[in-house]
Amino acid sequence: MHTQRLAARGEPCQGKRELTKLRNRETLIAAATDIFLEKGFEATTVRDIVNATDLALGTFYNYFADKEALFAAIVDEHIGRVAESVREFRRKATSQAEFVRFGYEAYFRGLAANPVSFELARRHETSIGSLNRIPMFCLAMEHLVEDIDDAKTRGWLPDADSEYIAAAFVGVGHEISRVMVSRRPLDPDYAARFAAALFHAGLCELPRN
Amino acid sequence: MHTQRLAARGEPCQGKRELTKLRNRETLIAAATDIFLEKGFEATTVRDIVNATDLALGTFYNYFADKEALFAAIVDEHIGRVAESVREFRRKATSQAEFVRFGYEAYFRGLAANPVSFELARRHETSIGSLNRIPMFCLAMEHLVEDIDDAKTRGWLPDADSEYIAAAFVGVGHEISRVMVSRRPLDPDYAARFAAALFHAGLCELPRN
Repeated sequence: MHTQRLAARGEPCQGKRELTKLRNRETLIAAATDIFLEKGFEATTVRDIVNATDLALGTFYNYFADKEALFAAIVDEHIGRVAESVREFRRKATSQAEFVRFGYEAYFRGLAANPVSFELARRHETSIGSLNRIPMFCLAMEHLVEDIDDAKTRGWLPDADSEYIAAAFVGVGHEISRVMVSRRPLDPDYAARFAAALFHAGLCELPRN
Repeated sequence: MHTQRLAARGEPCQGKRELTKLRNRETLIAAATDIFLEKGFEATTVRDIVNATDLALGTFYNYFADKEALFAAIVDEHIGRVAESVREFRRKATSQAEFVRFGYEAYFRGLAANPVSFELARRHETSIGSLNRIPMFCLAMEHLVEDIDDAKTRGWLPDADSEYIAAAFVGVGHEISRVMVSRRPLDPDYAARFAAALFHAGLCELPRN
């Protein structure tokens, strides 16, 4: 993932040591993701994670202070990836309907593409605390309020309370995604259609500023 | 609160010992609420809570196993009170508009009437974990799905996915309430008008089953 991103940005090839670092970090993250899901966060030790790789115990601490830090890195990376894609799609919108629909499509598809990571975050909400403590989540909320203000100046959204619109938008997405991931087959497009239909019609009726 | 409820239900007066029990429990809950808010959950000890009352340390353990149990009782009671009032108001509805509006009004007013308790729950989401682990919250969600199914048979709601409608309804309420309690003056009626307007218009456009 990281190496792909770097390559895509056309940056010069990394030195061997840099690549080893990235690989070790990813190896630890991948091993931890599996073991957290299997044994649960509380029961997992740093040694369990390291034993599932070919790395030495001491190496772990070059990358993470403890298992909490590793877990936070997993969640932060996951939220960051989904948030980046949501914003990218939202910015392609040329109307209110697209603004709402593109955002939800990217969000639900992003979660459906990586249900393991979502499930992990959901199960361990106790460990990481509320979403509002994750910097990536707060950043994503700020971006949403910015994009809503921008959409208002383009005339796509009514001049209603931007913070409330953002809160409602995220609340619908978050709660519906909980139900979505509990169903089989995973159907992110239905979830997006549902959330977008609700939101799109509702926006027109909001109390104005 | 408890004694009022019992009286309102027309049950016979409690014996002196029963009343003392209820009072002790309420005394501990009231003291703990203040101290949790002041010092934070982590830094608070059972001794701190007991010292703020005229009870003996040993008495605490007649009521709660530890401070986590006391905190869970605070949150459960708060959610239970709000959920009871929401359901009661929702049941007075005679149309879709009322079904949506009455529910949100009772919810936001309930939170605004007791912002301390809400703030406490919000700050300590790490300690209590996600809302989905609180039995009262799960019960309230089940009741909402039941009421939505009932409203559908009366023709007030479209024949769309009840679980998704419930999730979206709660998501909008929960996220908007976070913003509402951060603003002064507290304005639950504006929050209710906003959420109800969004939801009411949106419902008509949902994909049908």
